[in-house]
Amino acid sequence: MTTDFGLTDTYVAEMKAVLLRQIPRLMIVDGTHHIPPQDVQAGSLALQRLVKVFPPGTIHIAVVDPGVGSDRRILLVEVNRQYVICPDNGLITWAWRRHPQHPRPFELLWRPVNPSQTFHGRDIMAPAAALIAGGKVSLKRLARPIDSPILLDIAPAIAPVTHGRIIGFDHFGNAVSNVPDDALSLHMPGAIRVKRWSIPFHPTYASVAPGKPLALFGSSGLLEIAVRNGSAQRSLNLKLNDTFTLS
Amino acid sequence: MTTDFGLTDTYVAEMKAVLLRQIPRLMIVDGTHHIPPQDVQAGSLALQRLVKVFPPGTIHIAVVDPGVGSDRRILLVEVNRQYVICPDNGLITWAWRRHPQHPRPFELLWRPVNPSQTFHGRDIMAPAAALIAGGKVSLKRLARPIDSPILLDIAPAIAPVTHGRIIGFDHFGNAVSNVPDDALSLHMPGAIRVKRWSIPFHPTYASVAPGKPLALFGSSGLLEIAVRNGSAQRSLNLKLNDTFTLS
Amino acid sequence: MTTDFGLTDTYVAEMKAVLLRQIPRLMIVDGTHHIPPQDVQAGSLALQRLVKVFPPGTIHIAVVDPGVGSDRRILLVEVNRQYVICPDNGLITWAWRRHPQHPRPFELLWRPVNPSQTFHGRDIMAPAAALIAGGKVSLKRLARPIDSPILLDIAPAIAPVTHGRIIGFDHFGNAVSNVPDDALSLHMPGAIRVKRWSIPFHPTYASVAPGKPLALFGSSGLLEIAVRNGSAQRSLNLKLNDTFTLS
Repeated sequence: MTTDFGLTDTYVAEMKAVLLRQIPRLMIVDGTHHIPPQDVQAGSLALQRLVKVFPPGTIHIAVVDPGVGSDRRILLVEVNRQYVICPDNGLITWAWRRHPQHPRPFELLWRPVNPSQTFHGRDIMAPAAALIAGGKVSLKRLARPIDSPILLDIAPAIAPVTHGRIIGFDHFGNAVSNVPDDALSLHMPGAIRVKRWSIPFHPTYASVAPGKPLALFGSSGLLEIAVRNGSAQRSLNLKLNDTFTLS
Repeated sequence: MTTDFGLTDTYVAEMKAVLLRQIPRLMIVDGTHHIPPQDVQAGSLALQRLVKVFPPGTIHIAVVDPGVGSDRRILLVEVNRQYVICPDNGLITWAWRRHPQHPRPFELLWRPVNPSQTFHGRDIMAPAAALIAGGKVSLKRLARPIDSPILLDIAPAIAPVTHGRIIGFDHFGNAVSNVPDDALSLHMPGAIRVKRWSIPFHPTYASVAPGKPLALFGSSGLLEIAVRNGSAQRSLNLKLNDTFTLS
Repeated sequence: MTTDFGLTDTYVAEMKAVLLRQIPRLMIVDGTHHIPPQDVQAGSLALQRLVKVFPPGTIHIAVVDPGVGSDRRILLVEVNRQYVICPDNGLITWAWRRHPQHPRPFELLWRPVNPSQTFHGRDIMAPAAALIAGGKVSLKRLARPIDSPILLDIAPAIAPVTHGRIIGFDHFGNAVSNVPDDALSLHMPGAIRVKRWSIPFHPTYASVAPGKPLALFGSSGLLEIAVRNGSAQRSLNLKLNDTFTLS
């Protein structure tokens, strides 16, 4: 489960209650519930990291849903041998672009008898996930194939890479870019230039002294700008969508 | 488990350790641990939302307990076919008032041999919950029936409803009121008046443009004041206990 | 699992994905993920509280790891009939010092084929924990005995105790000291002196009026300075490493 609900309210627990009503011993794992409210791009990056590592058969419910109650579609996407249930608002973008091997998009058509109009995560997506997890209902009875989901205007850089863009920040202040390691496998950069800084490329944080900046491939396989034992976001005053060049 | 412990310390995990010592494969779900410290009313609202959706047989442990170590009683309440274990300080109020079908209140008498005087959640309520979940001890050996728990001075509005009161806010800044949908089923309001604003009533967030206020029934069945894709609490400067009229 | 990762990112969930890939129905419990970034001492105190209460056979993964990617060792320590996997940077200190009955330290030698250099929690410690939990690999094949882990310069006070030191704060603002109850069992203090205050010793919060300070033994068995229904940290302006005397 990946949402922008936070953990202050009981929304997340209510979704779990719905799941456990159907499948009492279901294994439920929290992805994160701290996506900034209604930040679909941040949700998209988080979802892809999870789709990358969770085992085949996992069902992801992802809810960052500014259009709840409108006629936006609800997606059911098969990607990396897992399922994702989420609103059709771009949330699937990064998983779709980073796992291009035969993703299959569907529109979820199943609806409960009296769905609420304010909490589709609890009242539509969670019970639909339970139906799929239970394995007693065929996908065809719940959903119909569609051509393509809505996709945001972000994409992994492709070789040859001359520049990149900051697409997110983590809790430690590391800046995550759109440059994947596979796009650079032949020509590793010596350094990157962002704003007025030249930042050396290294394999790991410990390659530089505490407080010093470096560029490295982070644990998601994307180029990151970091400051050892510090925050690159703060120290270098980096912003979302800042661009940099590779040299 | 619903508490004001936060997730910074290990208090929540310590309660889980106690439960898992007794029942190694117990399904434990976090309600929320971010009730504002010692805010019994906020805890009461959260607890009711959980009691509304969790399956029969669920045992809720709720700890917002400014009186820990005093002679305040510990409750064991059967409500909506579930159990709630909590201090007798009003925390049960909203569940009690919203689920009036035969709630049965008991005082928990069971105590461990050497209870701590500072952490009854871990040292009394969690092991008592494990005893009940284990099903080997009858309720009568743990608790005695009482007349009534302590109740706070908040109650759902009853028909005919002419005004309401703000009783809480969620993470998105939606203001939750004490007006339940069943009290308005015959006469839906056209708008509500709060402070100097007239706010139209709509079925869902998407009925108004982003940034615009609306009143609607939220996912807990209570009338809420919201701002689409924004925070009603901030935009309208709403406060706890603000009153409004229905027209 | 105890880390400084926070819950904003998906790091914690990624570690769980790795564990569940190996053992699909593994019981995973979050200790806390809100250790202040790279605060090894705070992590050490949290870890000990967990080691004190979790059942025998529990495997703790603790990651507060400023030296990730350097040649710092990874520990596997048997303590209080549980295992702890953590970087060898002092994180084990408080558990080691508070549970001195035959702790056995090992260096974890097992490595995956292609370990990342930035996320050892996910790529080394989690799979190693799954190997141990699975019970199919002997400890000897994963680790070698060592003489002693790295230990921080904090230790429980020993009798006769004349003064103590504040070693941490909890979510409620209670100040936790290094004075364990067993060191004071014969001579309970009447009061403690910290800065310009004399603070009476009481068995529980409810012994004083709301807003009043007291010293008591907290739920971890350590002497704490608290303010009933308030924050001792704020009210008394207490700081880490402040010392006090017992009288």
